[in-house]
Amino acid sequence: MARPIRLTDDEIAERLSAHPHWTYEDDGLTRNLTFESFVDAFGFMTSVALMAEKLDHHPEWSNVYNRVTIRLATHDAGGVTALDFTLAAHVDRMAP
Amino acid sequence: MARPIRLTDDEIAERLSAHPHWTYEDDGLTRNLTFESFVDAFGFMTSVALMAEKLDHHPEWSNVYNRVTIRLATHDAGGVTALDFTLAAHVDRMAP
Amino acid sequence: MARPIRLTDDEIAERLSAHPHWTYEDDGLTRNLTFESFVDAFGFMTSVALMAEKLDHHPEWSNVYNRVTIRLATHDAGGVTALDFTLAAHVDRMAP
Amino acid sequence: MARPIRLTDDEIAERLSAHPHWTYEDDGLTRNLTFESFVDAFGFMTSVALMAEKLDHHPEWSNVYNRVTIRLATHDAGGVTALDFTLAAHVDRMAP
Repeated sequence: MARPIRLTDDEIAERLSAHPHWTYEDDGLTRNLTFESFVDAFGFMTSVALMAEKLDHHPEWSNVYNRVTIRLATHDAGGVTALDFTLAAHVDRMAP
Repeated sequence: MARPIRLTDDEIAERLSAHPHWTYEDDGLTRNLTFESFVDAFGFMTSVALMAEKLDHHPEWSNVYNRVTIRLATHDAGGVTALDFTLAAHVDRMAP
Repeated sequence: MARPIRLTDDEIAERLSAHPHWTYEDDGLTRNLTFESFVDAFGFMTSVALMAEKLDHHPEWSNVYNRVTIRLATHDAGGVTALDFTLAAHVDRMAP
Repeated sequence: MARPIRLTDDEIAERLSAHPHWTYEDDGLTRNLTFESFVDAFGFMTSVALMAEKLDHHPEWSNVYNRVTIRLATHDAGGVTALDFTLAAHVDRMAP
């Protein structure tokens, strides 16, 4: 399947209005999440991992105890694409 | 640590009143859960797995797509113990 | 995408020769696995879950401590299809 | 249970000889791992997560596709303790 093309800054700004938990910086989308516990954080990460593998589009992410930071970008396109917003929407749905 | 002792039928019935999603049958506690998707089901299972390993008390469970069946029993005690209710409470907290 | 069609008993027998850990029974493929620990068993299950979601083809499976039983069948086709062997191959690759 | 006390640089150097994949820097132990795929990487992460929760000692870690970076330190002790080496040994056992 064709990979999505890079969105312009205006297109990103418009789409971000529907995803208020995300910020656009360094050519990627970033969201920080805090959970009740590590158990909750890693259960969430597993759900995101399943969606990421299904989309064949994977996050750059880190975890420390109950905190998770997710960065989404499409390397082939050199920036943010519709695919990143698709994964962001899944993250938002599964976030507490 | 000492393993918990088997609860009597009366003790189980009393505790079950706080866990209405569980049924007591065949010397174990059973709960069936249905999720929106496999992604949600397996994310939940991962959280339960983390708690189970922490408690060193593991479920007998099965999964088919968005459905999960969990059975809790304490083999060493030959029935249901306080440990099963501890894990049941975690399951209930993490269920949708 | 078109779903695969049901394989004949002869086709299944031929393919099973490359997957000696699986048995064909009740219109499905079954494999039992035993791991060193629950930690190993559930790590394996997570890898299988990721492949299953990617393939949009999910197992019927159960777990008790370090043991996992996986049954593969394609309900829409009423039996075993090429898709089941695709997932079986992934299971075999990730098994210890 | 009492939390472990911070190890000296000499003690760390001695223990590191048994864990050649780890480096000691910035008061922590770090290991980088590369897997065949995201599926393998996340299956591994799940096993580590289970051990971490069991030990009540969690890593700082990040993942990008098939790569995982793990940093171990004991914040309460202000450096590396025996607990970090316990978790490092589990990571080593589960690494490919």
